[in-house]
Amino acid sequence: VGELSAEDVKKREDAKSLDPYSSDPERHPVLHAKCKKPFNAEPPREILADSYITPRVLFFKRNHLPVPQVDPASYRLNVEGLPGGALSLSLEDLKTRFPKHTITATLQCAGNRRSDMSKIKQVNGLNWGISAIGNAKWSGVRLRDVLLAAGFGPEVAKWAHHVHFEGLDKDVTGTAYGTSIPINKAISEEGDVLLAYEMNGEDIPSDHGFPVRVVVPGVVGARSVKWLGRIVISTEESSSHWQQHDYKGFSPGTDWKTVDPKSAPAIQELPVQSAITVPADGAVIDRSDETLTVKGYAWSGGGREVVRVDVSLDGGKTWQVAQLRSGDEGQPAEPSPPPGRAWAWKLWELTAPLPPEAEELEIICKAVDNSYNVQPDTVLPIWNLRGLLNNAWHRVKVKVTED
Amino acid sequence: VGELSAEDVKKREDAKSLDPYSSDPERHPVLHAKCKKPFNAEPPREILADSYITPRVLFFKRNHLPVPQVDPASYRLNVEGLPGGALSLSLEDLKTRFPKHTITATLQCAGNRRSDMSKIKQVNGLNWGISAIGNAKWSGVRLRDVLLAAGFGPEVAKWAHHVHFEGLDKDVTGTAYGTSIPINKAISEEGDVLLAYEMNGEDIPSDHGFPVRVVVPGVVGARSVKWLGRIVISTEESSSHWQQHDYKGFSPGTDWKTVDPKSAPAIQELPVQSAITVPADGAVIDRSDETLTVKGYAWSGGGREVVRVDVSLDGGKTWQVAQLRSGDEGQPAEPSPPPGRAWAWKLWELTAPLPPEAEELEIICKAVDNSYNVQPDTVLPIWNLRGLLNNAWHRVKVKVTED
Repeated sequence: VGELSAEDVKKREDAKSLDPYSSDPERHPVLHAKCKKPFNAEPPREILADSYITPRVLFFKRNHLPVPQVDPASYRLNVEGLPGGALSLSLEDLKTRFPKHTITATLQCAGNRRSDMSKIKQVNGLNWGISAIGNAKWSGVRLRDVLLAAGFGPEVAKWAHHVHFEGLDKDVTGTAYGTSIPINKAISEEGDVLLAYEMNGEDIPSDHGFPVRVVVPGVVGARSVKWLGRIVISTEESSSHWQQHDYKGFSPGTDWKTVDPKSAPAIQELPVQSAITVPADGAVIDRSDETLTVKGYAWSGGGREVVRVDVSLDGGKTWQVAQLRSGDEGQPAEPSPPPGRAWAWKLWELTAPLPPEAEELEIICKAVDNSYNVQPDTVLPIWNLRGLLNNAWHRVKVKVTED
Repeated sequence: VGELSAEDVKKREDAKSLDPYSSDPERHPVLHAKCKKPFNAEPPREILADSYITPRVLFFKRNHLPVPQVDPASYRLNVEGLPGGALSLSLEDLKTRFPKHTITATLQCAGNRRSDMSKIKQVNGLNWGISAIGNAKWSGVRLRDVLLAAGFGPEVAKWAHHVHFEGLDKDVTGTAYGTSIPINKAISEEGDVLLAYEMNGEDIPSDHGFPVRVVVPGVVGARSVKWLGRIVISTEESSSHWQQHDYKGFSPGTDWKTVDPKSAPAIQELPVQSAITVPADGAVIDRSDETLTVKGYAWSGGGREVVRVDVSLDGGKTWQVAQLRSGDEGQPAEPSPPPGRAWAWKLWELTAPLPPEAEELEIICKAVDNSYNVQPDTVLPIWNLRGLLNNAWHRVKVKVTED
């Protein structure tokens, strides 16, 4: 990088005071941006399921605020709220004082597939397609180990109910992004919550939380706080906007006049989900192909494993079972996760004869997880004013033409 | 009871050899029997949600075999498969050597609401309505405590993956009812699996497993083995018919010719569920009533708490949020369960103005749990050859008449 002249430093600071997003990193041009400031973008759906492990540059970006510039040498993570006083850890402390763990985990934005909700009735939020989801290998230390080192024990367990995470990303008033998770998820050996410093074997990119982010597997992406600065053990949930007012689900009959945020729990575990990545909606299929291949992803929250994906080529009249895989084609599959710890998605594929004579196909997918929860048939009855939690069957229409 | 004459004993034995069900207990006449031998029955739906705690006589009965006559004085529970050799416990041992725990837990048959599946296409199973579900207070010892006393420890944890339960109920060939659950559910402090000897504060009735039954909260009723005789720690699932071939879910496209039982996991946690108990399907409402009250139950598996029930009076076009309760009307509610341990159902109620001019109402309910899983809209896409796991929206039609 080299040293900057005093003039360059001045210019950069001026630009930043005018535009807090001016030091955001460069992004891959193939991403579809839903908002540039803060940066929110997803990869094209057609390539999403090409890799079991989503490449870092293609992984959806969901920033609430400008990307903070964090110097790894002076970085400190503060752990507060425990009786022994605050613990302050450097990046080096995290890497050397605690065992390194790696998990493969899918993160999904609560707004994934919102665009199919907004088609029905206006909602308030970014117009995500089906690609606000990705699967990565995350390495770092267990949150559990850090909490134990900071003094968590049986006495604390009596009163501690929540763990707050605060990012180093701040709005113009100085308020940081923040949220919380229940203590049992944070402290359980089976919870697998990481303070991650690597994504797919390399330092976490700045858009994904460099140098340290939380990864709460099985839980809505919003709780996996990036650029983690502070952890607080508490009797209460985070009082942040994002915990108390955003990221909650409501009845389709609830509008902005009647909504009571206290009436709904903060989203933590997500429901069962799947979507079709190939073919694209509106694609044209040549009848002489004789067979059609449909591909996609499926995932469920809470560590519940997807056990089946049903695919229909006739708008839901008949169903065929897709092949599932936990790895890339021709590569060995990931080992089976322990029960209740299936954090990673499955890719699926079905190759079936083209229905004879049909000129248009409505292709649908729906997944089932190992608690036998299923996806609802339609969007309208799960519509909500924030456009969150759309896990209705995913449908695409394709045309079949004669050669 | 008194002593039986030798002649009476002889008569009873003769009867039993002719009919293994001859010593089954008497049942409440209000129950709707789906099968008499073995006895399977559910209470009328209209009274099911009258009590938060289902009275023992009204609780659905789901027997696979004749009810065994167990002498509590000579009863033994054998715990096997652990390195220290088998442990044999009397009823007195269970009651005195281990702490007594009580949980309020809902049990539901996997075939609950099958009758709405069989209307669409024939299925193989008892024609349950919506009342193959009940909520009771179960008291006994924790399975965890018994396993630890029998020698379960870190060494065993390395290889033990399943806990088998075997009942004292046997078929004519001497095969006992048996099944298994994953070890993590059995051994976890949060799993709350009980070996129960009381139901609603009294000895467990013979139809419900006297003197000792398993209660696996959050899990399909089939795993809560009654008349428990034997517990086996194992590397494998139970090899019983009920574990390997029954109580599994399949795609709607799977038929008896194509079904591969190995392709589906044994049902453990159940999906989110709700049903309307009042009004009855086909009820006639007087328009001069002006308001309509709809009541029902809602529950989800895996300790996931029901957080909302939506009710529609117009076939799903619009939705209103019902009031939930965890106790009887006018009584204090049960204390809130710890996170992930919501084992008991919620009762719900909605009183709403009668839609003007409508001559027929299609009333629908659907529940949402705290992982934001929802019920599917329709039955056909979750239809399966055994008619299990029907958690589609529950619908009843009522007529509105002028006075």
